[in-house]
Amino acid sequence: MLTVSQTGFPAMLADSPDFFHPAPRAQHFCSQCGTPLVRRMPPGDNRLRDLCEHCGAVHYQNPRMVVGTVPIWQGKVLLCLRAIEPRANTWTLPAGFMELAETLAHGAMRETQEEAGAAVELRGLYTVIDIPHVDQVHVYFLADAVDATLDPGPESQDARYFAFDEIPWENLSFRSVSTTLRCLLEDREKGCFGPHHLVLD
Amino acid sequence: MLTVSQTGFPAMLADSPDFFHPAPRAQHFCSQCGTPLVRRMPPGDNRLRDLCEHCGAVHYQNPRMVVGTVPIWQGKVLLCLRAIEPRANTWTLPAGFMELAETLAHGAMRETQEEAGAAVELRGLYTVIDIPHVDQVHVYFLADAVDATLDPGPESQDARYFAFDEIPWENLSFRSVSTTLRCLLEDREKGCFGPHHLVLD
Repeated sequence: MLTVSQTGFPAMLADSPDFFHPAPRAQHFCSQCGTPLVRRMPPGDNRLRDLCEHCGAVHYQNPRMVVGTVPIWQGKVLLCLRAIEPRANTWTLPAGFMELAETLAHGAMRETQEEAGAAVELRGLYTVIDIPHVDQVHVYFLADAVDATLDPGPESQDARYFAFDEIPWENLSFRSVSTTLRCLLEDREKGCFGPHHLVLD
Repeated sequence: MLTVSQTGFPAMLADSPDFFHPAPRAQHFCSQCGTPLVRRMPPGDNRLRDLCEHCGAVHYQNPRMVVGTVPIWQGKVLLCLRAIEPRANTWTLPAGFMELAETLAHGAMRETQEEAGAAVELRGLYTVIDIPHVDQVHVYFLADAVDATLDPGPESQDARYFAFDEIPWENLSFRSVSTTLRCLLEDREKGCFGPHHLVLD
């Protein structure tokens, strides 16, 4: 049975993990004053924006950054088996959305700790991958694991080091992951490791 | 005299260039349903978010990317004199916020065209600069101007090519600009040009 909070809201619903979801990109109300937004070109701009004709706030939107690592331990590469959608049950490099107030490097190390329980030392920027059809840029750092410890968090069912000839190519999570791993194999032949800037159409 | 639109809104005010402003980072109302937001940790998350207990939308926020170029023509570097705040009347590399649906490269070339009226061919990623205290990552490409044409847009009072020993160091706009120009001078000595990943504290 649902209980109703003081605001008239069914409190049990909001406690359910399924109730909350990332806000879609489409914006309908002003985050500053709650007024319905209009789609219009602001004075001096050259494209349509979501804007509030009540308080004047223009709600610009920008691509998001995903940050991660390519952790290496004794010549093997770390992959995590995703426990959550999208792409549950596929293998991925540890990565996730960059948070406010952090650097690319801090975000990449945080995601590696959260998803794999692995502590790493970053070698340097490795791949920068534009994915314009989803409004994202993915950034991976090449990294050395500081030891063999793995402790996958709630977003991962498993975390494991794969020899380069054991990478599960048929069951990888995202194209930025397979692209980064292909760069790694090619660079290993050349003995020279990135950085690479690529675009996925 | 202000006229009032059908929504009760003073229409002349909204037509004034000064009325509109970028929405602040602080969010108070849900963009999906207009309900006041609460600051709370969603189930399964590990930090506080702005969330809507009415429709379940979680309003994540992420750092923004600024993209630009370092345009070179006959051994000189292009700078633009800013016509607008912030930092009006200071010299800058052409750069601006990356837009949805574009790549880093397209954004950098678009900004170069908009701010300087210069067409460029990109050589490659040059600097990637974390600026965590303003929640931004700045990305510059080294670029060759295709000809000497300059036609500064409304955001620039002037655009001009500077010899390396004429760069107006005392009157540059942002630290990512001076940092990128310093990289350029150092790389010129070495004869090897980036890319560089840096953090501005």
